[in-house]
Parts: sequence; C-alpha cells; structure tokens
Amino acid sequence: MAATRKPIEYADASAEVRAVYEDIMATRKTDWINNFWKVLAHDPPTLRRIWNNIKEVMGPGALDPLVKELLYVAVSASNGCHYCIASHGTAARNKGMTEAQYSELLAIVGLANETNCLVTALQVPVDARFL
Amino acid sequence: MAATRKPIEYADASAEVRAVYEDIMATRKTDWINNFWKVLAHDPPTLRRIWNNIKEVMGPGALDPLVKELLYVAVSASNGCHYCIASHGTAARNKGMTEAQYSELLAIVGLANETNCLVTALQVPVDARFL
Amino acid sequence: MAATRKPIEYADASAEVRAVYEDIMATRKTDWINNFWKVLAHDPPTLRRIWNNIKEVMGPGALDPLVKELLYVAVSASNGCHYCIASHGTAARNKGMTEAQYSELLAIVGLANETNCLVTALQVPVDARFL
Amino acid sequence: MAATRKPIEYADASAEVRAVYEDIMATRKTDWINNFWKVLAHDPPTLRRIWNNIKEVMGPGALDPLVKELLYVAVSASNGCHYCIASHGTAARNKGMTEAQYSELLAIVGLANETNCLVTALQVPVDARFL
Amino acid sequence: MAATRKPIEYADASAEVRAVYEDIMATRKTDWINNFWKVLAHDPPTLRRIWNNIKEVMGPGALDPLVKELLYVAVSASNGCHYCIASHGTAARNKGMTEAQYSELLAIVGLANETNCLVTALQVPVDARFL
Amino acid sequence: MAATRKPIEYADASAEVRAVYEDIMATRKTDWINNFWKVLAHDPPTLRRIWNNIKEVMGPGALDPLVKELLYVAVSASNGCHYCIASHGTAARNKGMTEAQYSELLAIVGLANETNCLVTALQVPVDARFL
Repeated sequence: MAATRKPIEYADASAEVRAVYEDIMATRKTDWINNFWKVLAHDPPTLRRIWNNIKEVMGPGALDPLVKELLYVAVSASNGCHYCIASHGTAARNKGMTEAQYSELLAIVGLANETNCLVTALQVPVDARFL
Repeated sequence: MAATRKPIEYADASAEVRAVYEDIMATRKTDWINNFWKVLAHDPPTLRRIWNNIKEVMGPGALDPLVKELLYVAVSASNGCHYCIASHGTAARNKGMTEAQYSELLAIVGLANETNCLVTALQVPVDARFL
Repeated sequence: MAATRKPIEYADASAEVRAVYEDIMATRKTDWINNFWKVLAHDPPTLRRIWNNIKEVMGPGALDPLVKELLYVAVSASNGCHYCIASHGTAARNKGMTEAQYSELLAIVGLANETNCLVTALQVPVDARFL
Repeated sequence: MAATRKPIEYADASAEVRAVYEDIMATRKTDWINNFWKVLAHDPPTLRRIWNNIKEVMGPGALDPLVKELLYVAVSASNGCHYCIASHGTAARNKGMTEAQYSELLAIVGLANETNCLVTALQVPVDARFL
Repeated sequence: MAATRKPIEYADASAEVRAVYEDIMATRKTDWINNFWKVLAHDPPTLRRIWNNIKEVMGPGALDPLVKELLYVAVSASNGCHYCIASHGTAARNKGMTEAQYSELLAIVGLANETNCLVTALQVPVDARFL
Repeated sequence: MAATRKPIEYADASAEVRAVYEDIMATRKTDWINNFWKVLAHDPPTLRRIWNNIKEVMGPGALDPLVKELLYVAVSASNGCHYCIASHGTAARNKGMTEAQYSELLAIVGLANETNCLVTALQVPVDARFL
C-alpha cells in the first residue's frame, strides 16, 4: 500500500472514472485531463463529487469567468497551494489574465494576509457602518 | 497598560496621526475614518506605513477596482477575518458587488479551501503543461 | 552552522539521546527509529519531551488505537504536513486502515475545511441546542 | 444590504429551500434545522450543493459513523471553527462520544498541531519506509 | 453534557488537579490560577502534561525570559489566538515589554505574514548561501 | 508565460530595479542580493514597496535587532515558510543566535501552536486580569 497515489490514466481507468474524465473533457473542450482528477480517481465517488462541485461553482453565473479564476488563484496563493496556483493560474491566463494583473493579485493577497493578521490580533471592533 | 487598544478619534489624535487621517479621507472622498486606522493610530509609523501600502496596492492599476475589492474579501473570508470581510465587503458593495456575486465569491472560497487541502494532502504532482 | 538539521543515527548519538531511542523502540516493539526523532535529537530535552507527550497521548485510553491514528492523520492532512501524513498514515495502515477508509477520511477533511471556512466567514450563530 | 446573513426559517423559505430543509429533516430523522443551513439558504444552489456533499460524505461508508463525526470535530477544532465544533460535537455525543473520548481527541489535535509545526519547520525528510 | 467546559475553581477541584494548581502558583510565585488551566482541569492528565511542557519550555534557558514571552505573543498574534495574546502579553508586560516594543512586535508579525505568503506563492528558490 | 518567475540578476535588471538592489546592498553592507528580491523584481513597484516595509520594520527601534530576527523566524516557522526560516535564520545567526537559542525558539513555536489550538477550540474565556 503506497503512501502517495499515482495518477490513473484514461487507458487504465474504470468505466465509472472514464465517464467523469469524458465529462471534464467535454465541458472544458479539451482532450486532456490534469493530474488532480487522475489522483482523485483512486476514489471514484470523490472524483465525481468534486468534479460536480467545480463544474457548478466555476460555471456561468453572476461573476465573470476570469474573475472567478482570479478569486480561485488568490485563495490558493493565500493558502500556499502550489498545484492550484499553477492550474488555476494557467486557466486565468487562458482567459486573459496578464502578468501585470497577476502581480497586482499577489500584492493584494500578501497585503490582505498582513492586515487580516493585524486586525485579528488587535481585535479591532467592527464599525457600526459595516454591519 | 491595556491588553487591547481603543480607537483614537480625530479630536484626540496627534498632528502626525491627523495628517494620515486627512489623507485617508481625501483619497476616499469621505469625512469618516474606520476603526482599523483608529486602532493602528497607537503606533503612528505603522499607521502611516500600512495606509501607504493600502493606498498603493488598492489604487488604480491593471485590475478593475471592484475586482480588487472582491479579491480582498475572498482572502479575508478564507482567513476568517470578520473585520476585513465587513470593511472590504462594504467597499465592494459600494463599487457594485451584488448579493449574487457575493454568494458566488463565498462558494469559490469554500471550494478552493477544500481542493487546496486535498491537493496538498495528496501531493498531486504539478502537470508539465502548468509549468 | 547549517540551516537544516540532519538526522542523528543511534551510533552517533549521546547516551541521553540513545536512552530515548531505546524507549521508542521498546514501546513500539521495533528496532527502527524514524527521522522525526533523529532530527529532534539535536535538542535532547525537546526529543525527550515530545516523545513523552506522544507516548502518553497516543498510548492506551478511551479511544481505539486505530481511531487515534486516524485523528492524527486527519489533522495532519488538514495542515498539509506531508511527513506526518506519511508517518501516521503508515501507523494507521499497520493498525488496519484500508484504502477505502483513507479515502473517506480525506473526503471528510476536505469537506470540513470547506464548511469551516463558510461557517466562519458567514458568522453563523451557534444554535441554542448546541450549547 | 446587510453584512451578515440572518437565518431563514422554514415558514419564510422558498419552495426550493424548503425542499432541501425537508430532505435534511428526513435524512436526519428530526423536525429541526440548524442555523448553518438557514444561513446558506440565502443562496439556494449552495445550500443544495453543500447539503448533498455532507449527505454523501457523512453517510454510510467504510468508516464507523461515530468515527466520521470525530474526524469532523478534530479538523474543526484544529481550524478553530466554533460552530462546527459545537454542531459536530453534538452529533458525536449523540452517536456515543464520551467526555473522556473528547478529551483524548483534543489532546491529539493539540499535539498534532505542535508536531506538524516542528516537522515542517525542520523539513524532516520522509523516511523511505513511509513512501 | 455541555459543549463548552467551565473553569474549575480550586475549591471544587480534585486532589490531582489541586496538586497542579499548587505547582503553577508556586512556580509563578502567585496565588492565582488563570482560566486556561481551570478549563484544562476537566482532563487532569492533559492539565498536568501541558503544564509540565510550559514549565519546561518557558523556564530558564538560552533565551532571555522576556524574549521567550515575546516569541509566544508573536506566534499567538500570527495565529489570531486572543486568549494567548492576552495572557502572554500580560506576562511580557510584567517582564518589561513596553508599548513601543509591542507595536514593533505586531509590525513584524504582520509583515512576516505578508512575505511568508508571497515567498510561498512565488516558490522562491532558497539561496545556496542560506543552506 | 511561465507559471513561476525566475530571479532577475543585477546585470539584467532595469534602472528602477537596480536602484532598489543598490539600496538593499548599501543598507545591509553587502554586495549580494538574495532570491526573494530577484523574484519580486518582475513587479518593480512591489519590489520597492516590500523593501521599504522591511527596511522600516526591521531597522533600528525599540527591540534589539537580534530579537527582531528571532520574531521573524518564529512567525515563519509557525507558518512553515522554508525560505523565510532559511533567510531570517541566517540573519539571526549572523547577529548571534546560537543553536541552543534556535532550539528553544522552535520549542516555543511548537508549544504555542499546541496551546493556541487548545485554547481556541475550548473557547477559554479571557481572565479579567488580562483585559
């Protein structure tokens, strides 16, 4: 039993897993599956569940598709998740994010972490106007 | 010596602190200072430094002003910082954020925290295409 | 002076460190010491103190030994600590954790991170029935 | 537009929200809805999505139902989420968790946070036996 | 069974708990016990174990006692733990921490959180000189 | 467009970036620039802004220069930021930090993470004497 789970390729996948892979490729109009799904494929119900969540949350809605990716990258950068910075960063670039916009995003993420920390440590009372 | 620091009102502030308060009000075209600055005012160099950072990072740039506030709210929500959710949430609403957009933002923040956690725990290798 | 500390092998260890290594091996009925202890060995009082904590907390008690390891793995997965996922994951497997159980554990950890984040950001008031 | 969202009672809920409330009550064999769902109800698709995730992940599977609740409580305690400690703590107690077991759970969560921190700071190399 | 544990006063404590309370008071040369210990007292082995850890780690050593308290406050401020900021902040003030020093400490904690976040998100390679 | 940003050497830097590099070298009395600045150099305003923050916060003040570095290392260790542990750890060693002091620092960081977690999970009420 291995400590880490290796990506499962389409050729080696069960019918249940292949069905999710096919929905991912059809939804994203690509012929390629990234490693996150291939690793989740060791647990087919979780693979299907997480994909359905991503498909719904990141699909068309009230926010612009690029803004959605920027928000995903910002949270991932704040949490130090390299895989999600790389994958959602690529998605954001494919949707038009420029390097200047990425620089500003990182500056906001860094500064928010500083002020979140100060505000919480100092227990600043929330102003009545913000309630 | 108190464990928490009380907000310092304009009337009670030193000339050094008042100068920052005035720059905040002029930049934001308001006659009002929120508690974060009033608490930081116990340490005038930090008050000035943090304000200069916020003014530069959140000022005009490559990203839309509303998007900047959305990113700030998203990181603050991810970090559970109630004050910053309230203050930057208000700023975002003033710049046009709708409740539907806020709901989508929260959904993305929640889901990113779930997938950031899974990806990191599973040590998913970054795909070559993302490098 | 090196930035990182290299594991100290039994053969190179002081009598004080060897005594802890021997207690670890006797308690765990093994002839092997893992790297965590060998790195802590640069600071013998901390080595002894942390070992005594682990021995007490993870020893026989009100919770089943496998459940204790599952809880350790869950917290470590939530915190993204690869070493502890690997070491306590191995201990859990040795005590009977199946791959299906590990998959469920990870699903719970991921989902808890999502709902912890949403609940905190939304400041959901705790229900009277839970108090 | 308020900064925080108030719980939506069944009597005030839309048909879409009521349908989820009814599924929660039927699944849990109760006539009561806790505040988490009532606050999520401001965003019906998220209410339905998160409930479906919880229902699937916390439903019958490879791990004992009590163990699942213990894992949820442990992650929530590690993240400092009071609402989830209270709600899943209550669920765990209803499934049989004793105070002695809760004490042991907290001891493990605290110690795991200490060793996760030390191991990561010291960059302890993962032993070959754990791979 | 209550969700939260109330502080246990000396008068209501078992002999086992009283023995720890007495060691705390003797070590600290005070006739007073703070709430952390009174809440931990619901689990006497954890009360004793955590106190022994604090006594050893925060006792005389290579670092100045005030510096030790400053480090404790800094980590607690970074983690947003209000109780520990208040309790170790009081201890630091009793050992001589000035308000100006506390302001500098908070400025460092805030800035470290910003640069920790940026460095990790950008995956800055560690310089050979630092290894 | 690359996912990660490579360090920009002085020879390849713009005049704006070189000016910051020169101020770093002059302030630190060295002829060397570490990778953090070389990676930030892709975004010159952020390079200049973060450097000005570090220069001000870590410059002469109410706390001893070594204590300032110890606090930076402690927060970075608590956050698991390897780059900052290595860079500020080197700075602390250059200012006199011994290995015994570093061991004590890590012991405090680890224990603070344990007690921060326990105190928050248990919602220990802050004692009146600490307010």
